[in-house]
Amino acid sequence: MKILKTVSQAQKLTSLFRVKGKVIGFVPTMGYLHEGHLSLINAARKKADIVIVSIFVNPLQFGPGEDLKKYPRNIKRDEKLCRDAGVDYIFYPDVKQMYPEGYSTYVNIEKISDGLEGSIRPGHFKGVATIVLKLFNIVQPHYSFFGQKDAQQLSVLKKMTADLNVNTKIIVCPTAREQDGLAMSSRNIYLSKQQRADAPYLYKALEYAKRKIMPGNYNRDIDFLKGQMSKLIKSRVSATKIDYISFNDNTTLKELNTLKNTQNREILISLAVRFGSVRLIDNIVIKR
Amino acid sequence: MKILKTVSQAQKLTSLFRVKGKVIGFVPTMGYLHEGHLSLINAARKKADIVIVSIFVNPLQFGPGEDLKKYPRNIKRDEKLCRDAGVDYIFYPDVKQMYPEGYSTYVNIEKISDGLEGSIRPGHFKGVATIVLKLFNIVQPHYSFFGQKDAQQLSVLKKMTADLNVNTKIIVCPTAREQDGLAMSSRNIYLSKQQRADAPYLYKALEYAKRKIMPGNYNRDIDFLKGQMSKLIKSRVSATKIDYISFNDNTTLKELNTLKNTQNREILISLAVRFGSVRLIDNIVIKR
Repeated sequence: MKILKTVSQAQKLTSLFRVKGKVIGFVPTMGYLHEGHLSLINAARKKADIVIVSIFVNPLQFGPGEDLKKYPRNIKRDEKLCRDAGVDYIFYPDVKQMYPEGYSTYVNIEKISDGLEGSIRPGHFKGVATIVLKLFNIVQPHYSFFGQKDAQQLSVLKKMTADLNVNTKIIVCPTAREQDGLAMSSRNIYLSKQQRADAPYLYKALEYAKRKIMPGNYNRDIDFLKGQMSKLIKSRVSATKIDYISFNDNTTLKELNTLKNTQNREILISLAVRFGSVRLIDNIVIKR
Repeated sequence: MKILKTVSQAQKLTSLFRVKGKVIGFVPTMGYLHEGHLSLINAARKKADIVIVSIFVNPLQFGPGEDLKKYPRNIKRDEKLCRDAGVDYIFYPDVKQMYPEGYSTYVNIEKISDGLEGSIRPGHFKGVATIVLKLFNIVQPHYSFFGQKDAQQLSVLKKMTADLNVNTKIIVCPTAREQDGLAMSSRNIYLSKQQRADAPYLYKALEYAKRKIMPGNYNRDIDFLKGQMSKLIKSRVSATKIDYISFNDNTTLKELNTLKNTQNREILISLAVRFGSVRLIDNIVIKR
């Protein structure tokens, strides 16, 4: 396994792989890898000749007052995990490589970036789309692997890839979860013992909603469901604030106010909850 | 020569050329080709194995009230010119191919898009950058050829390509001119006889400024030069409005108010003038 630190080094290499007809699989990450990332790497391993993981904590997607500085980092640990998982290259640039002085080009995906995370974290998806497009251009992957956990990010990146005719295929992998259902996240290490015990209620709330809207329950009122989910989460002492609980069309991300006429559509139920200064997100997709 | 009408058809083909190690040269146009375009095609012919010309009048770069509808089009004539010039493929998509229903991704290059043309045509360069990035992703060119005439467009696209790490090299070709100095443009056909006779004064004004700031004249006052250029253009009856005459750093497009301390920098002198409803632009770059 090799570590690539510059854009030109990485791009030359991937151009060569493209000419040689090697299939490139790409897993973009912000590092501090967990089982979720490893499942993406595994999926890449199966579909590609060459697996490239990028590790870059992207300042552009953090708002002022967000956790950019204290976002967990441990490159040595990540290196070992990647090597053990059979990664071929880590692309590990510094901020100046990605955003040299005078950098001024940004990608924006309108509408789909606005609700949910976008409403709480303005500018977040502009930052995500811009860095991922840059990484696509550098790594030139045939397949790119993303986790379902960041549902809106997925919708945004799928839309960007389609709209800009980016020559890569986005592969979605299921959210990796702890035994008790908590979605894996690099931010979980910041949870206190009490918060960690309460955090699985996010998934419990999602599963509750899923049970309730399964066939036979078509007419369930979304406001009622949200109220019940909210109650369940608030019953946990360390869940300090619910940023949102939302039902959306999984393709357009249009918010749903009713479950009527949603047959044959994928419904995304997503939520964001703060445990003190730690903010967790989770979601579930239901095919009706 | 073949005509490609769909994105997937074009992208499959260029992916194949990339794998085969064929060098792709790309000339993006809005059609109604003239000598300027042909000089770009010639340059591409020299550097590339495969020459691809795109013809697409991009609605996104026209503002409301601009000349989108009456922009000249003649695909049969363009086809013949391309065939004679040794083009291998024309990429000729319709608007629905490029902007399907629900399209919502846009590229913006801040600062450099704001002055000059950007101040008169707000949103123009967002439209240009977005379509060119899409075309780059579809055509996957090693080299892309642009004329110097659209100076700000060039700066914007160079910045976009660098910032987004697009894997293509931008080649700049000199502005093709009529015998009397008028910069070639698809819009020139709309000039009346009087306007056509007056239009070369744009280049005369640029040449005047160039002579004045050559070595020995370092301290010439930019305001004075602009005044003289303006006088020269206004002496022509059919030049109805000067949108701007501007001196800028050719890399950053920062406006210059003085020629002091501009040694070793490229200076862009550019102007936009209306002849009735026809709007012409021209420029000259001076290496000091």
